Amino acid sequence: MRRFVIIGKNATASDDFRLDDLPGTSGRLDVLLRCVRAAMLFSHGLRRDVFVYLVLCGGERAPRVLRFSGASAKFIRPDERSLAVLAKKVLASQADEATTGFVEVKPGIAVSRGGLADVLGDVATATPYILEEEGRDVREVEALAGCDVSFFLGDHAGFDASTRAKLAAIGARSVGVGPVSLHAEDAIAIVSNEIDRREATG
Amino acid sequence: MRRFVIIGKNATASDDFRLDDLPGTSGRLDVLLRCVRAAMLFSHGLRRDVFVYLVLCGGERAPRVLRFSGASAKFIRPDERSLAVLAKKVLASQADEATTGFVEVKPGIAVSRGGLADVLGDVATATPYILEEEGRDVREVEALAGCDVSFFLGDHAGFDASTRAKLAAIGARSVGVGPVSLHAEDAIAIVSNEIDRREATG
Repeated sequence: MRRFVIIGKNATASDDFRLDDLPGTSGRLDVLLRCVRAAMLFSHGLRRDVFVYLVLCGGERAPRVLRFSGASAKFIRPDERSLAVLAKKVLASQADEATTGFVEVKPGIAVSRGGLADVLGDVATATPYILEEEGRDVREVEALAGCDVSFFLGDHAGFDASTRAKLAAIGARSVGVGPVSLHAEDAIAIVSNEIDRREATG
Repeated sequence: MRRFVIIGKNATASDDFRLDDLPGTSGRLDVLLRCVRAAMLFSHGLRRDVFVYLVLCGGERAPRVLRFSGASAKFIRPDERSLAVLAKKVLASQADEATTGFVEVKPGIAVSRGGLADVLGDVATATPYILEEEGRDVREVEALAGCDVSFFLGDHAGFDASTRAKLAAIGARSVGVGPVSLHAEDAIAIVSNEIDRREATG
């Protein structure tokens, strides 16, 4: 299982953003939604062995987490507006208010009113990595193929100290994808490609 | 110089698409615009050594080509809607009607009323590759770092026979990025990463 956790420092946890100005009204939820495409979709298909978590730390209802499961998700389209429409519907839900943990709102898409803590509970079985510039080259990381792994990424603003401490506490190791500081979605595409290559060659 | 040429079989060459339904009204121009982001942008920056060509083969004004030059482009934003707004403005131009070849309409963004032929004239100095599934692994391709290279990609519908014949005629060789058939933008991210790695190590 591959798990990608993208932490949006200011990304809105409520549905009050505008579809015609996503970057300007959502705390850059657009950055996170593009990561959903990169992690879950390939040409004409959906990756079944992937979870994506968007940790939303901005706006009135923060923190909340959106969880996308490749095994059961439907209607995941590659264009940003379609992903934003889907996120808006799920974030409008109150289903997570009365309970704890993840509540499925659409097929394969769940929401939780917890923050990073809820994600850490959910990914506890996975080997954790922080995907960032200074890390050890992902091409040199050994156990990737067929493993349960989680990759934590910051949005355009990176991680804050509290997040970094929590990731250190679970033993997350730093991995990188090369010499240039890339958009989170490109880093996900490159990591996914490395795992695809390993799994293809056994 | 890195050059990415994305051929949109049905992507509209006119500005009559809707921003609130880009996939449904533009012949999937959204696929091509996402390639612009992947090819030109990194975290908080614009790649200066890149040209992107979008070959638009759909709609009334086809064929036309949009050319983005990293050396002089401004205002290239990562979100799909901003890229679509920019494309709409450039495609509304009549500047290419009265002449041949590329005409700059916005800083670093030019349009031509030619099709693939205009691109081939423009990239004649570059070593041509076709980026597709069955190709030789890009990790094994020798001359990439610091070279003038062009990569031709199809959109979600692939290449037609005529395009393939033209690419064969210029000696374009087939290269691939791994075992899974990926979105064009992810293939671009992976190729760019391979070149970044080579250039960093000299």
